Amino acid sequence: MPTVYAVIMAGGSGTRFWPASRNKTPKQLLPLAGDEPLLAATVRRIAPIVPAERVYIATGEHLADATAKALPSVPRAQLLCEPVPRNTAPCIGWANATIARRDPEAIVMVLPADHFIANEDAFRAVLARAIESAASGRITTIGVVPTRAETGYGYVEIGDEIATGVRSVVRFVEKPDRARAEQYLAGKKHLWNAGMFFFRAQTMSDAIAAHLPPLATGLAAIDAAAKRGDEPATVKATFPTLPSISIDHGVMEKMTSLAVVPGDFGWNDIGSWESAWELAKKDAHGNALPEGGVAVDARNNLVRDLTRGGKKRVYALVGVSDLVVVETDDAVLVIPRERSQDVRAVVDALKARGDGGLL
Amino acid sequence: MPTVYAVIMAGGSGTRFWPASRNKTPKQLLPLAGDEPLLAATVRRIAPIVPAERVYIATGEHLADATAKALPSVPRAQLLCEPVPRNTAPCIGWANATIARRDPEAIVMVLPADHFIANEDAFRAVLARAIESAASGRITTIGVVPTRAETGYGYVEIGDEIATGVRSVVRFVEKPDRARAEQYLAGKKHLWNAGMFFFRAQTMSDAIAAHLPPLATGLAAIDAAAKRGDEPATVKATFPTLPSISIDHGVMEKMTSLAVVPGDFGWNDIGSWESAWELAKKDAHGNALPEGGVAVDARNNLVRDLTRGGKKRVYALVGVSDLVVVETDDAVLVIPRERSQDVRAVVDALKARGDGGLL
Repeated sequence: MPTVYAVIMAGGSGTRFWPASRNKTPKQLLPLAGDEPLLAATVRRIAPIVPAERVYIATGEHLADATAKALPSVPRAQLLCEPVPRNTAPCIGWANATIARRDPEAIVMVLPADHFIANEDAFRAVLARAIESAASGRITTIGVVPTRAETGYGYVEIGDEIATGVRSVVRFVEKPDRARAEQYLAGKKHLWNAGMFFFRAQTMSDAIAAHLPPLATGLAAIDAAAKRGDEPATVKATFPTLPSISIDHGVMEKMTSLAVVPGDFGWNDIGSWESAWELAKKDAHGNALPEGGVAVDARNNLVRDLTRGGKKRVYALVGVSDLVVVETDDAVLVIPRERSQDVRAVVDALKARGDGGLL
Repeated sequence: MPTVYAVIMAGGSGTRFWPASRNKTPKQLLPLAGDEPLLAATVRRIAPIVPAERVYIATGEHLADATAKALPSVPRAQLLCEPVPRNTAPCIGWANATIARRDPEAIVMVLPADHFIANEDAFRAVLARAIESAASGRITTIGVVPTRAETGYGYVEIGDEIATGVRSVVRFVEKPDRARAEQYLAGKKHLWNAGMFFFRAQTMSDAIAAHLPPLATGLAAIDAAAKRGDEPATVKATFPTLPSISIDHGVMEKMTSLAVVPGDFGWNDIGSWESAWELAKKDAHGNALPEGGVAVDARNNLVRDLTRGGKKRVYALVGVSDLVVVETDDAVLVIPRERSQDVRAVVDALKARGDGGLL
C-alpha cells in the first residue's frame, strides 16, 4: 500500500463569524466547536492515519504565522502559502506536485480545514475506505449522507457499487432549490459534497494535464524551480498567472470515472453562528454561556467571550431567547440566531465607512 | 430673606442598574442621563440658587470617597456620612441640625441625588417658589404633575391655593393600584411625591421634637458632641440607636399644615434601564449606541459600554429590537427593555451563589 499524505485546505477569509473571524484570523483558526481551532482539530483527527510529518497545509501568505502557531506539529516547510488566492485547483495542483516530488507513489487526501465531525472513528473508517479506493486509481470523494433537505450545499449523485462501500459518481450537482433538495433527500441517491478528495498523486497530475493545461504548465514551472532550489520566487511570479478555478469545475466534473464513499459521521460545515450554537455544549435551557453565566428565563442563546487578557466576565441574560452575543477586544455582535447569515451586513457597513481595521 | 442650604440625599445601594450600579457605585454616581453622574448634575442644577459651599451631601461611609470625587466643588466637611443607614428621618434630622449650627435662620431644601430633570429653568422657578413658601414657616414639598397613571410612586393630594402657585397638602397617599392611579390622573388633585422638601431649620427641629422624640434626643447628643469637637465618635455610637423611619412617615404625614408647589419640569426618577433608554440620545431608529455603533435592522435598543481603560469597541446590532445591553469590566447584561425591573433576578442569583464581588 502506498503512503498517504494529507493536504488541508486552510485559506479563506470568512466573514460569517465576524467579529471572531477577521482577515488574519479566519474561521479555521477559531475554536468554533470545542476548545481547539478547527484547523488543529482537523489535523488531530486524521493523525492516526496521516501523521503531522505527512500533512501539508494550503493557505495564504498573510496567514502563514498564525497557521504555523496553530499547528506546532506540522513542519513549517509544509505550509504552502499562496501569494494570491486562485481558488482550489491551483492550490491542490501545487500541493499535489510538492508531495509527488517527495513520494511519486503518494496517495493524497484533500480535506477542508474548517469542518466539524462528531464521530471521529466513523470518519476515519470512511477515510480508510476512500484511501483504498484512491489507491486503486480512481479519484474518490466522500459524500455525506443528507439529514435534511439542505439548499446550501452541492450534491453528488451516486451510481452503482463498485467496491464494498464505494459507489460510482453519476454527476456533481450544484446547490439545488428547495423542491429539488426535498427530492434528493427522499430519493437517497444524492449525497452532500463535503469537498474531500482522494487520489494518487500521479492520477491528479494526469488529470490536470488533461483538463487544465495552463495550470499544468504553471505547475511544471514551479516544480522545476523547486528542484533547483528557487521555488518561492517562482511561486510568487507564477501563481497570479494561474487560472482561478475550483477543483470541482476544473477537474472533478470532467472526469468520467469517479468514486464516492458515502459517510455518516456527524458532519457539520459550521457555516454560521447558528451552527456554532448547534455544536456548543448547552445547559438544560439550550444556553451556551461562558463559565459563570447567569440565565434567567432565557433560552437557546449563544454567548462567546473571545476577549483576551482581561479577566473573564459574568454574562447575565434575562428574558431573551435565540440570541447570539459575541465579544472580542474591539467589537461586540448581538444578532438573533436565525439571522446569523446577516453578519455580512455589518462587515459591509464597516467596509463602506472605511473601518478596515475591524475586518 | 434667610439664606438657603441644600441637603442632597445620596445614599442607597440601587440594584436596578446592575451591572453598572454596585454597592460602591450606586445609581447617583453613574452618568445615567448625559455625561455627568446624576449627583453631580443635581448639584450643578441648583448652583444658581444654592452654591456648592452651602450644599450638604447625606451619604453612607462606604461611599464617602467616591462621592467626594464626584463633587470636587463641595467642601469635604459637608459630606455627612452615616455609619449605618437609618432611612431618611435621621439623615435629614442630622443634616438639619448641622446646618442650624452654622446658620440658625437657615432655610433647608432636601433633594434626591438621582433624578433627572429636563427643564432646569422651570425646575429652578419651582424651587424658588418652594423656598419662599418655606420661608413663611410651612414645610413645603414639590409635587410633580402626573403625565400617566403611574402605580410606582406615592402621591400628594392637593387642597386650596394658599399663595401664588402654592397649595395646601390634604394628605400623602401611598402607591395606588391601577384604578386609583387612573382616578388620580383624571381628577387633577394628585401630584407625584418626588421626595423634595423645603423648611426653615427651626421648623424641622421643632417638628422632630414634636413627632419623633427619640430621634430628637439622639440628634441633641450629636449636636452637643459637634459643639465640643467630638462629632464623629458620637455619630458612630449614636446613629445605630436612632429610629429607622422615613421623613414622610415620621414627620410629613403628622404635620397639619403642609404646602406643596406643583411643578412640571420634565421629571424622571430614572427607575430602571428602561428610563435610561427613554432619556438617552437616540438615532432615527431609536437606538442609543456607543459612538461608532452599527445598527442593521435594529430598533429602540440601548447599549451602554461602561468598561474602563481599554479602547472603545464597536457594537454591532443586527435584527434585534427593544434590548438593553450593558457592559462593565466584569459583567455583561442583556435584557429586554420592558423587563428592566427583572435585573433584580440576576442580583439575587449572584447573591445566592455567593458571588458578592459582583454586587
